[in-house]
Amino acid sequence: MNRVQWSRLDAGARAALLARPAEMNAPDVSEQVAAILADVRERGDRAVRDYTQRFDGIVLNEPRVSVADMDEASATLPAALRTAIEEAAARIEAFHRAGMAADYALDTAPGVRCERMLRPIARVGLYVPAGSAPLPSTALMLGIPARLAGCEEVVVCTPPRADGRADPAVLHAARVCGIDRVYRIGGVQAIAAMARGTASVPACDKLFGPGNGWVTEAKRQVSSGAGAVGIDMPAGPSEVLVIADAGANPGFVAADLLSQAEHGPDSQVILLSDDDAMLDAVDAQVRAQLAQLPRAGIARQALACSHLVRVASLDEAFEISNRYAPEHLILALRDARAWLPRVRRAGSVFLGDWAPEALGDYCSGTNHVLPTSGAARYCSGVNVSSFQVAITVQEVSAEGLAQVGPCAAELASAEGLEAHRRAVTLRLEAAA
Amino acid sequence: MNRVQWSRLDAGARAALLARPAEMNAPDVSEQVAAILADVRERGDRAVRDYTQRFDGIVLNEPRVSVADMDEASATLPAALRTAIEEAAARIEAFHRAGMAADYALDTAPGVRCERMLRPIARVGLYVPAGSAPLPSTALMLGIPARLAGCEEVVVCTPPRADGRADPAVLHAARVCGIDRVYRIGGVQAIAAMARGTASVPACDKLFGPGNGWVTEAKRQVSSGAGAVGIDMPAGPSEVLVIADAGANPGFVAADLLSQAEHGPDSQVILLSDDDAMLDAVDAQVRAQLAQLPRAGIARQALACSHLVRVASLDEAFEISNRYAPEHLILALRDARAWLPRVRRAGSVFLGDWAPEALGDYCSGTNHVLPTSGAARYCSGVNVSSFQVAITVQEVSAEGLAQVGPCAAELASAEGLEAHRRAVTLRLEAAA
Repeated sequence: MNRVQWSRLDAGARAALLARPAEMNAPDVSEQVAAILADVRERGDRAVRDYTQRFDGIVLNEPRVSVADMDEASATLPAALRTAIEEAAARIEAFHRAGMAADYALDTAPGVRCERMLRPIARVGLYVPAGSAPLPSTALMLGIPARLAGCEEVVVCTPPRADGRADPAVLHAARVCGIDRVYRIGGVQAIAAMARGTASVPACDKLFGPGNGWVTEAKRQVSSGAGAVGIDMPAGPSEVLVIADAGANPGFVAADLLSQAEHGPDSQVILLSDDDAMLDAVDAQVRAQLAQLPRAGIARQALACSHLVRVASLDEAFEISNRYAPEHLILALRDARAWLPRVRRAGSVFLGDWAPEALGDYCSGTNHVLPTSGAARYCSGVNVSSFQVAITVQEVSAEGLAQVGPCAAELASAEGLEAHRRAVTLRLEAAA
Repeated sequence: MNRVQWSRLDAGARAALLARPAEMNAPDVSEQVAAILADVRERGDRAVRDYTQRFDGIVLNEPRVSVADMDEASATLPAALRTAIEEAAARIEAFHRAGMAADYALDTAPGVRCERMLRPIARVGLYVPAGSAPLPSTALMLGIPARLAGCEEVVVCTPPRADGRADPAVLHAARVCGIDRVYRIGGVQAIAAMARGTASVPACDKLFGPGNGWVTEAKRQVSSGAGAVGIDMPAGPSEVLVIADAGANPGFVAADLLSQAEHGPDSQVILLSDDDAMLDAVDAQVRAQLAQLPRAGIARQALACSHLVRVASLDEAFEISNRYAPEHLILALRDARAWLPRVRRAGSVFLGDWAPEALGDYCSGTNHVLPTSGAARYCSGVNVSSFQVAITVQEVSAEGLAQVGPCAAELASAEGLEAHRRAVTLRLEAAA
């Protein structure tokens, strides 16, 4: 891993260090993605079938997974895995339920009642990747808040395995979330089908879920322009930033860095420490642990773009972290809780030595679909409100209009909007 | 206005009727917008100055409005308008404050504490249009929730008037919101300056506010790809859908339709009624009231793409409305409250005869920055949470890890992520 001292870097070197490698290296796939989107819009299921054959090597006669196949997947799943999925689901549900917003109403003047009412987004599409590995945890992270929100129609698309079937753990996770509409469709064709609808796949109002660069670009395109659908957030490769003091456990820190690095060759990991010995020890531990990993090849590529940074102080570390706005932030600090108020930008934060980032990926209860690439500056991880819209309401009596109407009329005049003013004064005169 | 009977339309005609006129007629300005964005990124304030000269006809030596000018604007504003701005601000603040979310924490297992903490988005940029008219109300609708959220740096850009100054009502509204960074910059160059930063204008994390097609396209471009910033929502022309029964007041309904139509030639208004006589009466009232409007020319263009629709029943009207997902929905119904649960998709709803849509534009307390073009299917109007990020936190003790770690390890194995598993099991072994 690249080893640097922050105080010795000039402004340009600092910006380069904090730049996401994916942004520098991403191939431009926008034209190919646009072509697939247009083709699926035009030819529907036939196009989906063609791309599935081309990209997944599967002949897809019936894209939807049957109820019998879902039952079988659950029945044949190893008991320990079934239990783990259900246990994780329970904690994710508990945490997400506790954060749900409620409707409220307020009389802003006598006779003027204003309200906010929350409604589920009617049709949502969840993308569950299965590129290098199937991700039943992602099915839980999207399916549970969708159910809590009360979405009427929840669709899952997940790429078929080499044998043409959907991963049984993903199917069981979907069932645990009450989802019975699962399609064995992956990649751009899945996003296209959910955004535009085909004979088999219903058109959705909002799409969720992580994916590779192609899926991300497809989500970007369908969320923009005429006929746009909503998306959860701009997605990018996973990343972690660790702030470790001299008292941290270098083996734990190295394990956390590696668990992020194994996600993909474009993942990024950064360690900030005010202690040279800690940086040395973590570096050694990374080397030692890396040798034992089945995905060492992927992790090694990610580590090549990652950094061990010596900071002058923990204050400086938090400045850097807030500037980077990491998806995951681990505070491997003595009294991590006391430092928490310094965190202003991050997706999810892990306090202390006993909170590996992997807990948040699976089962602490928080969501693992989090803002990457610095989007934590302005957006949040998935939660129940991601599956809801808030509609405001005003109920006004004639007395209420007398209270607030003149104010509206005055402002309408100032804005030169005479018809706005008249819509108010006409009623004021009628009520008088 | 176009008069139709819903039951006589086939599927294609129904889709065409509910299509937004702007989507059909929007000129493609994406290349010109991209060129301006690139130029401002490259040349900063000098490019902003050049575009201001070209598009606004103003030589902009110092884009920022001085504190002295802001003071003077407040002092010279007519007292009635100053009072109206302050009165509206108080109600908007009361309603928005009542809907603020709070931090929360939950032990999802013994020793596993999960939390959500809300943080203000650090730097936000507010665009306050002043094309056909200055909009101090928009400054309030954006500035008040930004202040409630606690954003550290709030920047306003608003186009200069012909005399080179910013509109004094907009300046006073900004002051009421505690904003002192106002720039006399409009259009694409304003979005570019706030998204990328110049020597004068700080780079913002998220941009807010309505605007014309150019501004909308600029927001779309800066919110996508590398270096993206957040935006409040995809914006489009304003629109209203009214559902009126036989008991409605046709003069009021006509006034509401016209107050929407005067916004711009691409605004859309739709009236649904189960009563032919009501449609006749509203049509006549629209003609009569239109003649008296200073912006009749604009309204007439909008009405040319608008519709009076006879529905078979109010049930059918709500089906159509939910499909259209209007920005503004007026229920001019006897017992409108009883019909409210039928509303599943809308930006803001106005109940009964005494709630003109103009109240929501100015001073009922709800926000007027609302989803248009059907985006109410998946997104909400601006509120305090639009100016916040939610960060999740997990604090785990060694005992807590013993509780939930095995579940995480099991799921990590199923997903083939061995480094994830080891980050957990290494700690479990160390703690044992």
